[in-house]
Amino acid sequence: MRTLEWESTQNQLKMVDQRVLPSEFTHIYLSDHIQVADSIRNMAVRGAPAIGVAAAYGMALAAINVSASTVEVLRTELVSAAEVLEAARPTAVNLPWALKRMLGVAAQQYDSVAALQQALLQEAHEMADEDVEANMRISTNGAELINDGDTIIHHCNTGALATVDWGTALGVIRMAYDQGKKIHVLVDETRPRLQGARLTAWELLQYGIPFDIISDNSAGFFLRSGKVNKVIFGADRVARNGDVANKIGSYMLALAAHANNVPVYSVFPFSTIDIELAHGGLIPIEERPQDEVLDLRLHDRKVTPDNASARNPAFDVTPHELISGLITEKGVITPPFEEKLINLMGEG
Amino acid sequence: MRTLEWESTQNQLKMVDQRVLPSEFTHIYLSDHIQVADSIRNMAVRGAPAIGVAAAYGMALAAINVSASTVEVLRTELVSAAEVLEAARPTAVNLPWALKRMLGVAAQQYDSVAALQQALLQEAHEMADEDVEANMRISTNGAELINDGDTIIHHCNTGALATVDWGTALGVIRMAYDQGKKIHVLVDETRPRLQGARLTAWELLQYGIPFDIISDNSAGFFLRSGKVNKVIFGADRVARNGDVANKIGSYMLALAAHANNVPVYSVFPFSTIDIELAHGGLIPIEERPQDEVLDLRLHDRKVTPDNASARNPAFDVTPHELISGLITEKGVITPPFEEKLINLMGEG
Repeated sequence: MRTLEWESTQNQLKMVDQRVLPSEFTHIYLSDHIQVADSIRNMAVRGAPAIGVAAAYGMALAAINVSASTVEVLRTELVSAAEVLEAARPTAVNLPWALKRMLGVAAQQYDSVAALQQALLQEAHEMADEDVEANMRISTNGAELINDGDTIIHHCNTGALATVDWGTALGVIRMAYDQGKKIHVLVDETRPRLQGARLTAWELLQYGIPFDIISDNSAGFFLRSGKVNKVIFGADRVARNGDVANKIGSYMLALAAHANNVPVYSVFPFSTIDIELAHGGLIPIEERPQDEVLDLRLHDRKVTPDNASARNPAFDVTPHELISGLITEKGVITPPFEEKLINLMGEG
Repeated sequence: MRTLEWESTQNQLKMVDQRVLPSEFTHIYLSDHIQVADSIRNMAVRGAPAIGVAAAYGMALAAINVSASTVEVLRTELVSAAEVLEAARPTAVNLPWALKRMLGVAAQQYDSVAALQQALLQEAHEMADEDVEANMRISTNGAELINDGDTIIHHCNTGALATVDWGTALGVIRMAYDQGKKIHVLVDETRPRLQGARLTAWELLQYGIPFDIISDNSAGFFLRSGKVNKVIFGADRVARNGDVANKIGSYMLALAAHANNVPVYSVFPFSTIDIELAHGGLIPIEERPQDEVLDLRLHDRKVTPDNASARNPAFDVTPHELISGLITEKGVITPPFEEKLINLMGEG
């Protein structure tokens, strides 16, 4: 089972609808790039790597659907489609990364519209496969850091659901567990969208890995208790100096780990690095609708009063000083990060 | 309106039921100390100062209800009642503080059972009045630290609902606002019981003070943005060295404030100080039932999978190094705290 799959009979992108998990496991079928952009915006699909590949399929769908008489006309339409897809969410760099790669494919020479359509679909398939392969390499590299008996705090969801398959940070945990290491995961529930309580908990139950859900704000209690060995999370955009934009709450978690001498690892494929950005302060941070914070029910009662308002930043930046290592498909990168990231990026 | 009121016609303790706010504003009426202990345990009443006074009334109710033929017999019954009340919740020291004070009253000489009953009720009334008076002095002292235009992050609920009336940390904000200072409050929602999103938001709407609710895990984002001037919260037990046990999440909030040079204030009456305890590591931390973390609904869907488990520590300890000042009825105490706390405690 992949989070994203191509249905070739209907020319549709089939994706797990992550909004209704864990109470329902169901799929949605997307027929054009507008629907793909919507699925990214409304978080039917989320997770930086999954968003990137979904956008690539969105470009393939745009190419299939547009009635273009020439390759040139199709290219123009694809630029518009890329703009629609890129506007869906601003923080994860995997989205513009995937679109740029698809536009690069479109810029090559083709004999026919059909040939370009086919090339784009093929590229999306390759990106999906590469994502899974990268995750396996990432997880193999990261699993070496995990010790038998470790208690690990994990933030948000970085598993199979956040990628095409297998996962990044959760992939590391899964790999270490499959190697026979005894692991206990403290799952940050990850307000406001609760990707930890909903999605990571659901995945860990499938894999049989022991865990407890915790309120995000209790991670400090556990870190200070001396019983946590590692903190591990994903990334949505990594600046050249190693600053990591990730799901809101990652920064406070990293601060609490650092204050208690617990190592912090951010786990991601190289497609999440924005080598043009000098530091994390330049990363655009999405602020999402306030109802995501306000629309919460506890024991069948509405939690917040009518007329209350909320702020809802979806990401924050963890400065590189708080990070012990960046776990990637090219190995575990230790501080100082900048020169190593530039060199490894150049290796292509 | 007080959070706790004595109904003399029925000999009942009337309290606001904080479990159903803000969707319902309703009262419960408690006729004996067992019911009072239950109301503390199930958090119909919460907030360290409110718990202390509720327990005092619980002792008065025990005295009224017990059929004791002599003062001596009643004293023995009161010791049992105090044990029941003290077992309700372990962290807030106001609870044993109030019980000790009531047992001290009981230890005096009385001509009759009725005289002791009357003395205990009178003492509970005095403690209720003293709480409100202390809160007014605390708030006057603390308001001097608040500047016009301040943005303040507030954790949990420390308002009228957490006390007999007026409040501690929220009392400071309310006093500064009443002095004409323009204030914006970022209200930590305070998982898992959501006292911020439910109770503090409800209070701030009554007072007309502008605010936004935020996820606890986003406080770091706002602190790093440079737009927050103060962090302010209450206390459930303060050790001799100034370490503060408070609602879970206070520690991570204080870490994030400290990392961004934003001052952190803990606000409480002297009844919250446990001068016998050398440091916060000795404070007993309550772990509450896991369903408080797991039983959450988002858009009418159960959030957590069946078979998931949770950990639910209700408090954490903020080490004194992270605290800029302790705001009390005896003034604002700045670091180093220990000698000042001991001296001020001695002043009685």
